[in-house]
Order: sequence, then C-alpha cells, then structure tokens
Amino acid sequence: MKKIRIGIIGAGRIGKIHADNLLRSSQVDILAVSDLFAGPELEAWAATRNIGLVTKDSNELIHHPDIDAIFICSSTDTHVPLIQQAARAGKHIFCEKPISMDISKTEEAVAEVKQAGVKLQIGFNRRFDHNFKRVQEVVESGGIGDPHIIKITSRDPNPPHEDYIKVSGGIFMDMMIHDFDMARFVSGSEVEEVYAAGNVLINPAFAEHGDVDTAVVTLRFANGALGVIDNSRQAVYGYDQRVEVFGSKGSVTVSNDHPNTAVIATADAITSDKPLHFFLERYQAAYIEETQMFIDAILNDKCVPVSGEDGIQAERIALAAKLSSRLGRPVKVSEALELLKQSSAV
Amino acid sequence: MKKIRIGIIGAGRIGKIHADNLLRSSQVDILAVSDLFAGPELEAWAATRNIGLVTKDSNELIHHPDIDAIFICSSTDTHVPLIQQAARAGKHIFCEKPISMDISKTEEAVAEVKQAGVKLQIGFNRRFDHNFKRVQEVVESGGIGDPHIIKITSRDPNPPHEDYIKVSGGIFMDMMIHDFDMARFVSGSEVEEVYAAGNVLINPAFAEHGDVDTAVVTLRFANGALGVIDNSRQAVYGYDQRVEVFGSKGSVTVSNDHPNTAVIATADAITSDKPLHFFLERYQAAYIEETQMFIDAILNDKCVPVSGEDGIQAERIALAAKLSSRLGRPVKVSEALELLKQSSAV
Amino acid sequence: MKKIRIGIIGAGRIGKIHADNLLRSSQVDILAVSDLFAGPELEAWAATRNIGLVTKDSNELIHHPDIDAIFICSSTDTHVPLIQQAARAGKHIFCEKPISMDISKTEEAVAEVKQAGVKLQIGFNRRFDHNFKRVQEVVESGGIGDPHIIKITSRDPNPPHEDYIKVSGGIFMDMMIHDFDMARFVSGSEVEEVYAAGNVLINPAFAEHGDVDTAVVTLRFANGALGVIDNSRQAVYGYDQRVEVFGSKGSVTVSNDHPNTAVIATADAITSDKPLHFFLERYQAAYIEETQMFIDAILNDKCVPVSGEDGIQAERIALAAKLSSRLGRPVKVSEALELLKQSSAV
Amino acid sequence: MKKIRIGIIGAGRIGKIHADNLLRSSQVDILAVSDLFAGPELEAWAATRNIGLVTKDSNELIHHPDIDAIFICSSTDTHVPLIQQAARAGKHIFCEKPISMDISKTEEAVAEVKQAGVKLQIGFNRRFDHNFKRVQEVVESGGIGDPHIIKITSRDPNPPHEDYIKVSGGIFMDMMIHDFDMARFVSGSEVEEVYAAGNVLINPAFAEHGDVDTAVVTLRFANGALGVIDNSRQAVYGYDQRVEVFGSKGSVTVSNDHPNTAVIATADAITSDKPLHFFLERYQAAYIEETQMFIDAILNDKCVPVSGEDGIQAERIALAAKLSSRLGRPVKVSEALELLKQSSAV
Repeated sequence: MKKIRIGIIGAGRIGKIHADNLLRSSQVDILAVSDLFAGPELEAWAATRNIGLVTKDSNELIHHPDIDAIFICSSTDTHVPLIQQAARAGKHIFCEKPISMDISKTEEAVAEVKQAGVKLQIGFNRRFDHNFKRVQEVVESGGIGDPHIIKITSRDPNPPHEDYIKVSGGIFMDMMIHDFDMARFVSGSEVEEVYAAGNVLINPAFAEHGDVDTAVVTLRFANGALGVIDNSRQAVYGYDQRVEVFGSKGSVTVSNDHPNTAVIATADAITSDKPLHFFLERYQAAYIEETQMFIDAILNDKCVPVSGEDGIQAERIALAAKLSSRLGRPVKVSEALELLKQSSAV
Repeated sequence: MKKIRIGIIGAGRIGKIHADNLLRSSQVDILAVSDLFAGPELEAWAATRNIGLVTKDSNELIHHPDIDAIFICSSTDTHVPLIQQAARAGKHIFCEKPISMDISKTEEAVAEVKQAGVKLQIGFNRRFDHNFKRVQEVVESGGIGDPHIIKITSRDPNPPHEDYIKVSGGIFMDMMIHDFDMARFVSGSEVEEVYAAGNVLINPAFAEHGDVDTAVVTLRFANGALGVIDNSRQAVYGYDQRVEVFGSKGSVTVSNDHPNTAVIATADAITSDKPLHFFLERYQAAYIEETQMFIDAILNDKCVPVSGEDGIQAERIALAAKLSSRLGRPVKVSEALELLKQSSAV
Repeated sequence: MKKIRIGIIGAGRIGKIHADNLLRSSQVDILAVSDLFAGPELEAWAATRNIGLVTKDSNELIHHPDIDAIFICSSTDTHVPLIQQAARAGKHIFCEKPISMDISKTEEAVAEVKQAGVKLQIGFNRRFDHNFKRVQEVVESGGIGDPHIIKITSRDPNPPHEDYIKVSGGIFMDMMIHDFDMARFVSGSEVEEVYAAGNVLINPAFAEHGDVDTAVVTLRFANGALGVIDNSRQAVYGYDQRVEVFGSKGSVTVSNDHPNTAVIATADAITSDKPLHFFLERYQAAYIEETQMFIDAILNDKCVPVSGEDGIQAERIALAAKLSSRLGRPVKVSEALELLKQSSAV
Repeated sequence: MKKIRIGIIGAGRIGKIHADNLLRSSQVDILAVSDLFAGPELEAWAATRNIGLVTKDSNELIHHPDIDAIFICSSTDTHVPLIQQAARAGKHIFCEKPISMDISKTEEAVAEVKQAGVKLQIGFNRRFDHNFKRVQEVVESGGIGDPHIIKITSRDPNPPHEDYIKVSGGIFMDMMIHDFDMARFVSGSEVEEVYAAGNVLINPAFAEHGDVDTAVVTLRFANGALGVIDNSRQAVYGYDQRVEVFGSKGSVTVSNDHPNTAVIATADAITSDKPLHFFLERYQAAYIEETQMFIDAILNDKCVPVSGEDGIQAERIALAAKLSSRLGRPVKVSEALELLKQSSAV
C-alpha cells in the first residue's frame, strides 16, 4: 500500500488539526513538522504522534527527500514564498486560505505551481461541509433550475483579539473570503461585480485599523444571478453559517448544525440549544474530508477539489469588496487590481 | 336563497361560539336561544346578534314552527332527552360530545334520530382541524400504505376546576373521547380492544372522584394496527395536540400550531413561543368549519361529517377504557357494555 | 353604540376584501360603494351585504353627509385626488399603498390631510401580520439588543400579467415598497441610503417596460444598521415572506406560514406542504386587523398605526432604489427627489 | 502513560467497530482478536491495525497474561460463559447486549463479576447518543419537573433476515431491550409493570417463529410515571429513534438526526433528506464514547456508565413484555421470572 509522506509547516491550531486528521488515514505518514516557535511542547506533541522531525526551519521539510507533500499552515505572509519553494522542490502543497493579501503575488505563486506540475489545494474547508455540499449538489443537478438569488450568512460567535485585527487583512480578505468561495461553489458561476456596505457596530478597534465588523455585500454573477453575503464578527448565539440558493424551479436552504435535537417546552417558552459554537465544532468533519481528498488526489492523480485558481478568484472578489467598501460604489472584479494600483489610498 | 333557521339550546361558552360562527354564513338565521339561566345579559348578547327569542324553556325552540335545526350545547345529561324531543319534532340536530355517559341511552337517542329521518351531527370538532384533516387525507389516499401504528398525544394546559371533575364522567369519557374519535378518523378502522393505564400525578382531587389525570391507552384496531393515546390534564407549556400515523409506506406526523413562527436566538438559547394556548385558539377555524358543514349537509341533503354512530363508537371505546383502567386488564370494545352490567363496582 | 359609516371607492379584489372584513365589526356600517365599472354584478354583491348605494361616481361617497370614512381601493393614479377631496370633505381615509408614484404629489396629499385634521391610514397590511408584529415587538423590547443587520425576503408565487407590468410603477414602487416599510417597522430606524441591483431572469417583458423581476437591495439605516431585501416575481414554491433582525444581543427570525404542520416521511424523502400560496391566504388575518385598528383609531381618536408619513417614507426609499438600479450606484434617500428632477432619463 | 491492553472476542461487524473506535485512543492497545471463523481475511484486517494475535480460541485471550480487558462481541449464547471465564481470569469486561436470553444465567454471570471485582459494562450504546444524553440531563436537572409520561419510538429501516429472526430472542429481547434500558435511563426510575401489544404486519416469517414485528408496550414506573414504547421492524424512511419525557414542569423531546439540514422547496412540496439510515450512522459517535468511557473507568477506577445490573433490569423488563404479549395481560416485572417457570407454554 502506497503511503503519502507529509511535512507540516506551522504548528498552530489549524496545523495540529490537519495533522490529527491526516493520521486517521492508514495511507499517510507525517514525517516532520516545523514551527518558528518549535520547542519541548511541540516535540512532546510530535512524539505522541510518531512524527520524527521537529524543527524551526521549514526548509528542512521542503527539501526533505522523503516528503511528498507540504501542508502550509503558517501565517499568511509566509504562504507565497513557501508555495514557491515547495513547488520548485516538487512537493504537492496544501495551503491555508488566503494564499496572500496581494493578488499579484498569489498569481505568481499559482503560476509557479502550474509550471512545477505539482498539486496545490487551498483550504476552503466549507466546501466539504455536509450542508453546503448538499446545496451544491442540488444546484448542479438542476434541482432548483437556474440560480437567481444566492444568500450567504456567515457570522462568528466572537470577534478576534485586537492583535489579530491589525494583521487580519480586513473582514473581506480574512472572513468573507470563505463566503466568496462559497458563492462561486454553490452557484457554479463567477462573481463579476460586488457592492460592499460595512460598518463598525461591535468594537471601535475595527475602525482604528481601517476595518469594519459588520458587512453586507451584493454580488452580480456571470450567469445573471444576484447574491448577498452578510458577515458579523459577533453573533452572541454562536457560529451562524447558512446558505440559500433560489432559482427558477425552487430553492435549497441549509441552516445551522446543533449539538442535539432536544426541544424543551416549559411554562415560559420552547427552547433548544444554540448552534455548534465555532468552526472547530462545525467543520470538524469537513476538515477531515478536505485532507482525505487531498491525499486521494495525490494517490490517484486526480484534480484537487479546490485549486489555486479558486484561491485567486476568491482573493480577487475580496479585493473588489474591500475597494467597494472604501469607495462607496460597486466595483467590478475585473477592474479591482487596476483600481488598486491607481489608488494609493486603499 | 334558502336559509337555515337555527335554535340554540345552552348559551354557555361553546353555545355562543357556535352562534357567532353560524352568523358568518349568509344562509343562516338564528331565531332563538334558550338557557336555564337566561336573563338580561343573554338578552343583550342576543340583541346584538338579532336573535329574536330568548327563553329559559328549550321546548319553545324545539317546537318553534320556523326553526329547522337545533344546536344542543347544554350539559351532557340533557343531550339524550333533547335529541329525542328534537328528532320527534322533525328538527335537524347538532349535539356536543359526548351524547351521554350511558351508551344504552345514547343508542336509543340515535335510533330515534334514524327513525325520524333528521340529521344528527356530533361535535367532534377536531376532525375539522387543518392538521388532522391532512393526516386523514394522506392515510386515506394511501400515501403511507397500510397503517401500522397510530399515536395521539392530547394534553390540556390546565386541569378543570374540581366542581367539573366531579361531573365530567372521567378522563376517558370527557377528554380522551376526542382522541378515540380521532383514532377512528385517521386510521379508517374500528377500535376493537383497549388497555388503559392511568395515574393521579397532578391533583389528588382526581383520585377522590375515582378519576385519573394522566393516562396512556393502547388500542388494537380491526385492520391489525396498534395505537396509543396519551392524555395529561396539565401540560404547562400549553395545549398539546399531535397525531402520527405510521404505515407500511411511511408516516405522517402533525405537530402543534403556534401563534407565530418567530425564533429568537440569544446568548442563552434558541427560543420560540409556546403553542396556541387551548382549544378555543387551536380549534377556532375547526369550529367554524364543523358548523358550515352541518349547514351544508342540511341545505344540500348530504351526509353529516360526524354521525350519531360516530358518537356511539367513541363512547363505547371510552367505556372500555374506563373499565380497563379499573380492572387492570385489556378490554374488548364489544364486551364493554356487558361487562359494565355485570360489574356494579364500576 | 357608536357606529362608523364607511364608503368604499374601488370594488376590485382588495376593496371587496376590506368590505367583508369591515362587516365583521358590529361598529361598522358600509353605506356605499363606488366603482368605475359598477353594474348589476356589483349591485348583487352589495345587496347581500346590505350596502344601500352603488354608484360609478366616487363624489357621491365623498360628499355623502352620513359617511364618516372613505376606503380608497381604486387604481394608484386616483389616490392623490381622492385623498385631497375626501380630506376637504372631512372624511377619514384609508388608502391602499402606494399613495402615488410621484412623491411631490404624495406629500401634497398628506399635507392636505394634516390640514383637514382627518385620519389617514396607509394599507401596509404586513405590519399586522402575526409574525412580523412579533419581530417588531422583540426588537422594540430590546430582546436582541441594537439591530445590526436586517434581512427581508419577499417573493411572489407568480409574476403579474404583462398588462399590469406596464403600469405597476416597477418592482421597487409596486412590490418592494412593502419591504421598505417593513424595514422601517422592524428596525425602528429610518433608511438613509440604498443600493439596488436588479436583473430580468423570469420574463423579458419586464425588461421591455424598463423593469426588473429580481432584485437585491442593500440598505443603510440611520442607527448604523445595514439591511438587505431580496425580491423575486416568481417563487415556484409559493409566497415567500421572511424577516430576520440580527443584533448585538441575538436575532429574531420569522419563516413562512404553512397550511398545516404535516410532515410526510416516505422511502424517498421527508415532505411537507408548500407555504400559504399568496397574500390573500397569508395576510387574511392581517387585513382584518388593519381595518379594525383603523376603525378603532376613529372611534377612540387614537393615532392610526400606519400614517401618511409612513407612506411618504416608503415611497422615498422606493424612488431611491429605482434611481440606484438605473444609475448603478448607491443613492441617498434624501437626494432621490432632487436627483429625479435632474434626470429626465429616469 | 498507562495503556489498557484489550482482547476482542468476536470479530463481526460490531467487534470491528469497537476495535477501530478503541484504536482512536492513545491509551489503548489491542493485543488479540478471536473469532470462530478467523482466517486470512481477519488476519489481514488485524495486520493493518497492528493486532498481534488472531485466533479461533477465545481462551487464548481470556488467559493472556498481558490483556487487561475483554470485549465480548460474539453471539448472545456465548456471553454468559465468556463473562464467567473472563471474570475468573480477572479481566475487565465489555459485553454486548443482551447478556443472555435467560435471566437466571445473566444473574449468575453478573454475580460472578461482582465476586471477581472486575468491571463489567453492557453495550447499551444509545445512552451515549448526544440526543438521549441531553434528555437525561434535562430530566435529572429537574428541568421538566417530575416525569409523568415517557414516550420512546424505535423503528428499524429494514427487518432482519429470516435466519436471524429465528435466533433473535424476539422483538422484546432483541430490539426493544434498548428501549427498556432507555426508559430507565431517561426516567431515572425502575419499570414495575408492562403491557405489551404486538402484531405481525410486515413479514409473516415473524409469526412462524412466534415473534411479532410491530409492538406497542405500556410501562408503569416506580415513581408513578407512565410510559409507552413503540417498535417497528420496518420504517421505510429510515431509522426512527425518538424520545419524549413529559413532566410536571414541561417536556423534552428529541427527534432524529439527518445527514444535512438542506430543505428543498419546489413547485411540488418542501422536501428534506431522510434520517441517518441505521444504527451505524446514527450511533457512530455513541459507539466511540461508550468505549472511551469504559477505558476511562478502568484507567481511573471509576464506575462504568452501564452496569451488569442495568443489563439484568433490561432483560427482566423484556421478559415481562414477552410474557405480557403472550398472555394478553399486564405483567409485573417482579413476577416475570416466576411466571416463566410456571408457564411451559411460553
């Protein structure tokens, strides 16, 4: 039985999740993990998982002769150089989203991957969620006819720490980028134009960093459909992740997942438990499936389910949204990059 | 346009509801109302409704030459003689449930109605509820195949006053009789045997009057199906009226009606409003429809939707359940009457 | 007991519905009905309702000495002159929405009403719907904190006939105007800016008349909240009328009403019946309540629940949306009227 | 880190599931597996899991010096002797339900376990289901007051093969035994009396083996509550596993789990996907948790969550139900064993 040998760059929360998910497969060995802050703690973690090499130097992984594939789970600013190095070294790559905050750089990295002929999968984990997959299947099968209106709700239970706000890249690039990918995924069409309305309603710290915490974005798709995404950095009732596609022959709607189906009726009200709290709970199975499909793509030389091009498109839309929010007008996705160059203010 | 002229005997809550519902029809005139406690208040009520005659004497209505149909909304012990008198006077009859506490008397009354050739409809209002009608339609259309299991939940929000407990006839004859009729209605089959388990869990007053306040009754139907009804005199969250029919090709289930569809999500829980509080709210439209169908049956000489025979059957099942609860064993519906005669203790 | 005497101008579908709803009250007499096409059919209809006067001339109603209040249910282009005449004649007025397609005219009419000191209620029936009322109550009571995002879905089961498309005033003024009013009602805040994206996806006839059949509109509210309304002229599954308000302490969401709660489970799927088909079914009780509150406002000299100012605001937002859709940019509600004057093209 | 070393007796479907679930824990080693039909296939299966010993002889496991705990996943008739042997050998035991078809034997086995001082956990996996755990928590916390009515629905998607029907022990001992345990679990009270009504509605093969395929059983609990369980061997829409506890202060109800939350609305109906198909899908996480808690009980010397006494009680109730079904009368759980001895016909 062939095995894929993996190196993981970045041993933060998501890196460790991917590691444990990969270890569920009998066709995976994790040979090495690198992290800038590698130390005894990470070594202990690696030991219980039989991961032989722990290092601060990602180069050791990239140039490791036995490693087939690299998981890039380090901070966003490191993604592009790491992709380029890994591609040149002939390694397959799984990279967290977004590839970068700079589309030109993202495009260069993806081009390098293409030239190297290795596989690159982007970590848009939500595509693997049981609910959103079902939406996509129904739409693709024609079950609701031609899509007319796509609605995506995506709200976090808690805003990030202020330290993160500074470097997040803003709500459109950091948070809504998942929804831009979802919009493309469920509609089967490209987004051509966006109009973004945002506001700071939760924490003034967002304003201090030129960001918003609440946003409503209108989308125009190539197939004529219209869409809307709403984001909030703080839904006190928990992670709110819903999608609706309305079309000429009907609609398909998915609601949140809950920890149980219990309904409690008392003299006061009818009550049920809040949705699964956040992405770790909600997307637990989706994270497993995305890594399994990556391994499967390598083992059986299939297309990866989320390509570098998917990463580029989502970033383009996010950039257009960011510009729209600043300029107060709709922005075409195709004009975003040019507009950015013209506008030093953005 | 032909009009049906009505007399209403018994101007309590349900009598007044029927009156107002009848007045919605342009084909109905209410000529008279009688009540043992008729007085200025009832006269004022009647005046605003253009009801000419208010009397303490039900005979004035029964023998009124212009009255076509009598609504019997007085206490249960008066039903049988009033039905007999009205039938002999050639009036059509709408009678509240149960016809009586004594099946032999009920049978005599129904026989008299048959002989007189007038129409008699029994007030099993729940057959006209939008939810239960849909269950019956689905079952009758074969949508779930042959019925295998019938489940009926019926719980009141509050127990009745102790004064009423004394004269109610007990939970099986007073409350569960609706569910026995529902069981026949949705299954399309006769109940052949019952086993009743009851207990006093809410108010010891029920025990003092030889009654129970909580009951679970198993049913065996002629078509082989099994059923179960559960009753409670006190569901603190409101009126609980649900039905499920499970069959060889699937199931159909109806849940409660709510005052609105609002779902409120907060940091504590997901909450919605309690069901419609009690029968007046829940069966408002059903009460209207049952009287309209009675009027329609007279005007167009159709069968009434709930016959005297339906009244008899429900009483027979209720008696069997009462005996089963006392004897601690299953009782055949066909043996109930004979068993009652043998048993002076019941 | 005091009675309000009503005259109804316009005996189309909605005029007749209001008439029958008014007749449910013992405090209302309908003295007259006028319609341009009055004839034997309307006379027969009026006769069964004891309405004495049937005429083609609305002036007969407006100047009828015994009439207290006028219902204006005729075509939109007649609303302004009829309001002005009725106000001058000292009659209270219930007028269907929108007051007119021309805000200047609407403002003149409302000013005239104010001067005359009569009551004017606008027919935004949805404010009286059990679901939307509950949303408004929850928001107003602070149950979800400060509103951050308001989402309104409003889709018709079938597009109107092409004859109507021509004269409808367009989707924003004809259909979404209800949602603009709803946005103000549930948020408790004024809409300051809109961005409208529309498309023709259902029937090219809309394009021929400069209209769209599918639209997504972003709203900015004075209190900082953001909103989005989506409209479609054709939801094949039936009337889709949902609202969600998301705030700092939670959210409140209402879904559609259904004819029953039946859930059918078979070997294929779990199925339930479609929502109530269209506005007549969905808003049946809301129509009753809006007329009852109008009567109550007159009888007890209370404020009407939907004022002329509410009518003006909704029209202003609709105009801004129409302009936004044409201009392809966000439009402030405050600039819409000026913009319209500048732009002969709109 | 201490590890528990396991031997698994019986490598059928459930044995293999337990093995894989156990292997998720870093504190478990599986040393051996035995099966009467052990062969190359099982050896290959064991090899990929690093299980060193594969044998046909369960004695090799029971007397293996390094094995701490035995999983008994072989056929029901082997449970009692294996428990006795394992207990005498000082091994902790996890045994699938039911312990046996013969309560006297079950009692002897449990007594032997007690004497040996080893741990014995019975495989009532449903206690670990997220929904049923929530019901139990709500009831135990007093959230619904005193339990009055317990309702359990348990229906399989497909009947078993006729070969299995012969040896299953009948619906009460084979299938409803889970529900008897659930009744005790969620009510926090012992079942004192049962009345079982059964019928053959799905497959005459059940009748040929003295069994039924559809059953409704009434329960009386020590705390006064009443209960009802309904079982069907064939719910065409999938595995139907629901529980409701109704009490003095409210109710808690759990419905089925579904593969996704998608709701599809079309011109025909509103549709969603069927429940998770069968126990492997529905109880996947519950199976994992029951083995984890068993391991935890051994490692930390805690009580097991489902004891031998729990196994005995469920069997007693099942026996009473079987007798009730045959005798056509309610049977006290305390009299069942005596009744069985008297009755050669059962």
